[in-house]
Amino acid sequence: MNELNEKGINAQKAAGLLSRLSTQQKNMALKQTADLLIEKADYILVENQKDIQAANANNIKGALLDRLRLNMARIESMAEGLEQVALLDDPVGEVLYMKKRPNGLQIGQVRVPLGVIGIIYEARPNVTADAFALCLKTGNAVILRGGKEAINSNKAIVKVIQDALRSKGVPVDAIQLVEDTSRESALAMMKLNKYLDVLIPRGGAGLIQTVVENSSVPVLETGVGNCHTYIDESADPGMAQKIAVNAKTHRPGVCNAMESLLIHKSLADKVLPSLCAELKSLNVEIRGDETVQKLVPFAVPATEKDWSTEYLDLILAVKVVSSLEDAINHINSFGSSHSECIVTENYSNAQRFLLEVDAAAVYVNASTRFTDGFEFGFGAEIGISTQKLHARGPMGLKELTSTKYIIYGEGQVR
Amino acid sequence: MNELNEKGINAQKAAGLLSRLSTQQKNMALKQTADLLIEKADYILVENQKDIQAANANNIKGALLDRLRLNMARIESMAEGLEQVALLDDPVGEVLYMKKRPNGLQIGQVRVPLGVIGIIYEARPNVTADAFALCLKTGNAVILRGGKEAINSNKAIVKVIQDALRSKGVPVDAIQLVEDTSRESALAMMKLNKYLDVLIPRGGAGLIQTVVENSSVPVLETGVGNCHTYIDESADPGMAQKIAVNAKTHRPGVCNAMESLLIHKSLADKVLPSLCAELKSLNVEIRGDETVQKLVPFAVPATEKDWSTEYLDLILAVKVVSSLEDAINHINSFGSSHSECIVTENYSNAQRFLLEVDAAAVYVNASTRFTDGFEFGFGAEIGISTQKLHARGPMGLKELTSTKYIIYGEGQVR
Repeated sequence: MNELNEKGINAQKAAGLLSRLSTQQKNMALKQTADLLIEKADYILVENQKDIQAANANNIKGALLDRLRLNMARIESMAEGLEQVALLDDPVGEVLYMKKRPNGLQIGQVRVPLGVIGIIYEARPNVTADAFALCLKTGNAVILRGGKEAINSNKAIVKVIQDALRSKGVPVDAIQLVEDTSRESALAMMKLNKYLDVLIPRGGAGLIQTVVENSSVPVLETGVGNCHTYIDESADPGMAQKIAVNAKTHRPGVCNAMESLLIHKSLADKVLPSLCAELKSLNVEIRGDETVQKLVPFAVPATEKDWSTEYLDLILAVKVVSSLEDAINHINSFGSSHSECIVTENYSNAQRFLLEVDAAAVYVNASTRFTDGFEFGFGAEIGISTQKLHARGPMGLKELTSTKYIIYGEGQVR
Repeated sequence: MNELNEKGINAQKAAGLLSRLSTQQKNMALKQTADLLIEKADYILVENQKDIQAANANNIKGALLDRLRLNMARIESMAEGLEQVALLDDPVGEVLYMKKRPNGLQIGQVRVPLGVIGIIYEARPNVTADAFALCLKTGNAVILRGGKEAINSNKAIVKVIQDALRSKGVPVDAIQLVEDTSRESALAMMKLNKYLDVLIPRGGAGLIQTVVENSSVPVLETGVGNCHTYIDESADPGMAQKIAVNAKTHRPGVCNAMESLLIHKSLADKVLPSLCAELKSLNVEIRGDETVQKLVPFAVPATEKDWSTEYLDLILAVKVVSSLEDAINHINSFGSSHSECIVTENYSNAQRFLLEVDAAAVYVNASTRFTDGFEFGFGAEIGISTQKLHARGPMGLKELTSTKYIIYGEGQVR
């Protein structure tokens, strides 16, 4: 892959320069990019139209087509995103700690950029600008490999961004787009250890799985969310219903939406009929175990497969459990370690759930929908990590940095 | 690989329990293990003798044989290591921060174990006890896959450790040894994503490379150290010589030893003859560029390959550079981003070197030999990371942990 090697070399050169830009320089480049995206919106929309026509010709429809389509409002939203990233604190250069050792060495740990970040994503042109903003703010060079359906839109956006960078004296190779959108180019990128410090897949479960299985470049796995809400014996029924309805229906297509509801047997007859009626009125299909089917006439039988399914849709698996322990075991067996919630008024049960459930975010008495970089106060989000290395949960700017030890000596030897 | 799947299931079960052990329980188990290693030393030495005999039959010699061989002093040293880990602070449960969001949600980030750690290593039985101690203290289960030459020693050590755990009520599957030491078992372990949260290769460059290239499990890469010392124009010649000699000769076979010396042209004739004479007296072979060869009669010509070689031996590549910038460029081009040092009295040059050199540890006026978990004050070391994700530089107990967000709500929904 000559294209990838060449872009890798360029990115490494750019990364060295980017790591030393002042926060002011980076912010000015982000603002200039935002302005130029608006100024060149017509050009971007014309190029986007080519992708839309090709998509129509290929019979692409629905959500996929919708995500591909740009309009003035969406370009304005991209520009606004860039402005917002400019307002965030720059994590680079932060000294995490510094201490003096008994031998007089002063050892500090400083936040530095990761270097070169690769991002593989699907046909969502807005990711192009979003990912660039987060990478530039953290002093990283980025190599983007978007879906083939969005190639014209992506080329146009990257060209505008590079023009903005050039006008501010920032290396244009801070952002590069892989123009070869074949499957081979994606696979080659997963082996580009020589140039990439990290690879981030952004997209559906299939894409993420392919990257995890094939990449020798370190991966930040974002992801699958098979999230549960457990209504404990001592839960406030009204609060439980409000949280469960929100977690399921607020935005069912995203990873922090609830997919399974667990409820303690002692509360099932009190809560389930009313809760499931409300969910039904919101077009949610209920799939339940035997007890649930008895209490909820319109529930269809749940199969074993339902417990491990991320529906991303208005479907909910419901199970009655005999104890907190059963709930925790079910979650740790079938969950995807994303976001899990207990609704309870019992102190010990709350603490035990927080301790024993193995997930990126564990809630007491709040909707799992809050697992999000913005809701957590990071001001940005590159994705939600479901792995345990490097970052777990919503990833903001800090998660796009590494560290370096700096040591001030006075001639010390061992 | 039935063995691996079975061990993976066992390890995951154990990890859940280990994550909830109190520090006291973990420390008692470590101390009990230390005692039992001493008590059962004869058994371990008999089993080790089988490995030594097989090694002799296979004509294994030198350093490899030496590392394989156990004696009472080495078993005592293992036991002492376990006692020391018991004395260290337990990182699990530390709340890294907790804050209240505008909506009242209280969001905290807590340190938790990684889960199940896989370690692939060579024929060094002491790694078996060391790795176990660090994993247990951090509440992780570990699956060890050591070199085939040490299989009897490893089985014996693991048996003793499991006996100690059993007597203290700690899950014995906290440590498991893969008994199939074929190449296939190592490769299968690299694909054991279902059960392993991280894989750590400990050994030579070949082993590490194989793991990085083949593992779909997230890897903590430890490693190769092509370390430089740069003697700046303004360096104190006496300090420069002391640091360079220490960095090269104190322990030439380890990753933080200096492999290349760079020196500013204005200081070369003043420093090199005396420095290289001292190195020669310590049996160091000097490989130099043309200027070096003129100043140091016994220097042999350096080839391009020397600049990127980790000798791990009494050999030093020496190059005269024209500027600080040349030195930084050389280091960033040929180095392995491990440990790099500038010797200088110039403030701006020191700061620029610290900023621009891309490495895990960057020194001003101190030997690179200090890159070490013990020297950094961590009290332990699982290896020195040369990757940028998760951990960079010496890794102690904290680097064997992940985090979890815990959220205390009052019924919040979005």
